[in-house]
Amino acid sequence: MQNVKMILEYEGTHYHGFQRQPNGISIQEVLESKLLELTQESIKINSSGRTDAGVHAKAQVINFKTSTTIPVNRLGLALNTLLPEDIVVKGVELVPDRFHARYSAKSKVYCYNIWNSIYPPVFLRNFIYFLPPLLSLELMREGGKYLMGEHDFSAYCSKRTGVKTYLREIFSLEIRQREENLVEIEIEANGFLYNMVRIIVGTLIQVGLGKIRPQDVERILLSRDRRLAGNTTPAKGLYLKEVKY
Amino acid sequence: MQNVKMILEYEGTHYHGFQRQPNGISIQEVLESKLLELTQESIKINSSGRTDAGVHAKAQVINFKTSTTIPVNRLGLALNTLLPEDIVVKGVELVPDRFHARYSAKSKVYCYNIWNSIYPPVFLRNFIYFLPPLLSLELMREGGKYLMGEHDFSAYCSKRTGVKTYLREIFSLEIRQREENLVEIEIEANGFLYNMVRIIVGTLIQVGLGKIRPQDVERILLSRDRRLAGNTTPAKGLYLKEVKY
Repeated sequence: MQNVKMILEYEGTHYHGFQRQPNGISIQEVLESKLLELTQESIKINSSGRTDAGVHAKAQVINFKTSTTIPVNRLGLALNTLLPEDIVVKGVELVPDRFHARYSAKSKVYCYNIWNSIYPPVFLRNFIYFLPPLLSLELMREGGKYLMGEHDFSAYCSKRTGVKTYLREIFSLEIRQREENLVEIEIEANGFLYNMVRIIVGTLIQVGLGKIRPQDVERILLSRDRRLAGNTTPAKGLYLKEVKY
Repeated sequence: MQNVKMILEYEGTHYHGFQRQPNGISIQEVLESKLLELTQESIKINSSGRTDAGVHAKAQVINFKTSTTIPVNRLGLALNTLLPEDIVVKGVELVPDRFHARYSAKSKVYCYNIWNSIYPPVFLRNFIYFLPPLLSLELMREGGKYLMGEHDFSAYCSKRTGVKTYLREIFSLEIRQREENLVEIEIEANGFLYNMVRIIVGTLIQVGLGKIRPQDVERILLSRDRRLAGNTTPAKGLYLKEVKY
C-alpha cells in the first residue's frame, strides 16, 4: 500500500463543508466517489481538518492509502478530469507510511477576506465578506495582538461536543490592506476551534468600527464567554491557505 | 438635463455582451431597465465600447443624460440595490455636457489572463484561460514588440461590417508573470478592432509555445491576412481594465 498526500483547492460555496455527512453533499464525498471511479478501490481519505459549509481552501491537505498502479504523477491529473470544476487537485506526492494529514500537521493558516468599500465586488463576490463601513486597520491590529500565543479560546468559538481542550496557540495574526479595498486577516495557529477564525474576525471588526476598544479583545478572551465576542462572520470570506508539516 | 458618467464592473459570463441585441440578455439591457425602474425615465446609455459575449469589465465607462432628482452620490448605491450581483456601479460623477463615453475616450486598456499550469484554477476559473503547456514569456515579449505603434491590424481582427479603417495604435503591450501561474497580457491602444486582443493573444501564445517565431508576429501583421494569425482565445480570459479620457 502506498501513502498518497494530495493538495486540494476548492470553492466551498456549493458544498456542506469538507466532511462527509448525511444532510448534503460534501467535498469528501465527491473526492471518495471519484477515487473509487478512478482506482476501483473504496478509499477513505484523511484531511488536515474539516472546513465548514461554504468555506474555501487554496491548499487543503489530504492523505490516503491505495494499491493503485496509476503512477503518482498521473493521479492528480486523472482525478482532475473526473472532478467538478470547483474542486481541483494541485499537487500529489508519495509520503512515508506514518504521515497523516491531520495528526502530522504542525500548524494551519487561515485567511479571511473583507471587501471594505461602499461598492460590492464582482469578481471576488463568492470569496469575500462585503462590509461597507470604513475599518480602522490600526485599531484591529492593536486588538489582534491580545490573541497571540497560547490561550483558552472558549470565548472565540461556537460550542461543539467532543472538544478535549479549548487551548490553542496562535503563532501569527496579520491584517493587511491589499489591492483597492481588500482587507486580509491571516491567522496561523497549531489548531482552530469551531468557527474560531470567523468569531475572531467578527470581534476585530467591532474593534475596527470603534464599537469596542482594542483591549476589549483581551477582556473577552479572559471571560471565556462566547456571548461577549462579535458575530460569526460569513463562511464565504474564509479560506484554508496552508497546512504546515 | 445632467450628464452622468458611471464606472461599472461586471462579470460577462452570463451575458451576450455589453450591447443590446435581440438574441439574448445584454449588460446594456439590464442597466437601462434598472435605470428606468429607478428614475422612471427611458434612458439611453452610451458606453466606451461594446464588450463581447463572455468578456468582463473592471472599469467599463458609460454616460447618459437624465433629469432625475436623485443626488448623484446616491445614484450608484441605489442602482446597485437593483442590479444583479454580477453587475456593479463603482463610481458616479457629473460631467460636462460634451462628455461622451465613447467619443471622448483617449485610450482603452484590456487585460487577458492565462492560467499556465497543469492544474486548473478554482477561484479564478471564470476569469481566465487555462493553458497547461509552459509558455516562454521572453519569446512572447519579443513577439509583442512588433505590434507596438500604429498599424493596419486586419490580420489581428475578425471581420465585421461597418469598420472604416483597420488602423489602430497600440501604446503599450505588457506581459507579466503574476502570483503562481498567472500570466497577464495588458494592451493599451487608442481603439480595438473586433476580437483584436483575443487574436493577438492567440498569436502570442503560438510564439510562447515555440510554434512560430517572434518575428512571425510582424510577418502576419504585414500580410493583413487573418488566416495567418493564431486562434481567437476564449472570451472569459479577457476584461476591460480601464478607459482613459
